[in-house]
Amino acid sequence: MNGIEIHPIEGIPEIGSGDDLAALVLAALNGGPLQLAGGDILVITHKVVSKAEGRIIDAADDAAYRAAVENEARAVIRRRGDLLITQTDHGFICANAGVDRSNVAGNQAVLLPLDPDKSAHRLRIQLARAVGFDVPVIISDTFGRPWRRGQTDVAIGVSGMEAITDHKGLPDSNGRIMEATEVAIVDEIAAAADLAMGKTSRVPAAIVRGVDWKPGSSRATDLVRPPREDLFR
Amino acid sequence: MNGIEIHPIEGIPEIGSGDDLAALVLAALNGGPLQLAGGDILVITHKVVSKAEGRIIDAADDAAYRAAVENEARAVIRRRGDLLITQTDHGFICANAGVDRSNVAGNQAVLLPLDPDKSAHRLRIQLARAVGFDVPVIISDTFGRPWRRGQTDVAIGVSGMEAITDHKGLPDSNGRIMEATEVAIVDEIAAAADLAMGKTSRVPAAIVRGVDWKPGSSRATDLVRPPREDLFR
Repeated sequence: MNGIEIHPIEGIPEIGSGDDLAALVLAALNGGPLQLAGGDILVITHKVVSKAEGRIIDAADDAAYRAAVENEARAVIRRRGDLLITQTDHGFICANAGVDRSNVAGNQAVLLPLDPDKSAHRLRIQLARAVGFDVPVIISDTFGRPWRRGQTDVAIGVSGMEAITDHKGLPDSNGRIMEATEVAIVDEIAAAADLAMGKTSRVPAAIVRGVDWKPGSSRATDLVRPPREDLFR
Repeated sequence: MNGIEIHPIEGIPEIGSGDDLAALVLAALNGGPLQLAGGDILVITHKVVSKAEGRIIDAADDAAYRAAVENEARAVIRRRGDLLITQTDHGFICANAGVDRSNVAGNQAVLLPLDPDKSAHRLRIQLARAVGFDVPVIISDTFGRPWRRGQTDVAIGVSGMEAITDHKGLPDSNGRIMEATEVAIVDEIAAAADLAMGKTSRVPAAIVRGVDWKPGSSRATDLVRPPREDLFR
């Protein structure tokens, strides 16, 4: 295929602690026109992964929410009023340690999965067993950016593919060796999937088809810029 | 349509100063199975826009390149060896003031368009005249991120659509009013288009189909976080 297709997976029910996500994704696809195919990538929002893993807390008031944020944060990088820019135990730098109150029932809040790369790996293994071929899995979250307004989805968990497409040392279309072009392809895929999943609708997963990806053992934590390269911490 | 499709536009020739980009995009589509349709968004890399606008300089050696970077930068935010994190005159914060030597013939370098929002507007007006309906235009560039390795494409020019999808005040799927969810949809679209365009192939434009976008008069410069919100300058 020449282009890219992104198909939201509809029909995944509200997820609760202990649910079998792989089975629920496959059940949502079962019998419909949309099926997983070789070359596809599955993108799933961390929120359903966290819910399935029981990473939910009561956050009845702002104090409880703030306590959860402080608890989830390894370090606070910046603070402005109620907004904390934090580093999580995974190494990700994001607002409020990824603790999220939107799209959660009642007074609950969702934490990030303890190990999103492992969650992605588990899901990928279960899917491969069911469909008979390998489908890389990306777990996404919605992050802000320091200098640009608005948020975009990025990868916080990856299994089965290279996270970064390295064009270093490859000739560009003029035969010249390209300088430092490392594309964070899993982040671009997460962003693309978000276009299809929307935000208020109950669509927590999408199939991304037609991407030129490479099998690999990257983790999303590989995307965290090491301190020696980090000019903004 | 339920999902998203991203179609690279193949057959756009090498662009030179003074070229009519809209005509060349339409000529590349002419007679083929891929045509612009209502609801589509055109994404085009800034590099061909800059070339068409003559924003090319000689950068025979590193000193000439560095002089161009210093000239294009309004401010230097951080410096590490040869890498300058700069703010451009448009307000964008990016490496080396957006001056780019990859995918350029010989010893040339490409500068950012002087006013990428205006460039997008001009292209959109020309396309609308030719096809008879309005197609939003996004001009993309490849930016790094402070805390995440790898680069992703973002919007540096926009015409014809809202740059940010504002979910503030909308109920989420649990009927709860969502907190501060502003999706930088044009950046997600630019990232998605990059998946289809690749980096070493000569495909500088793509049609993005199926996105739920809103007509509007946003500029990409609206995405620049105002200084009072900026914690990392």
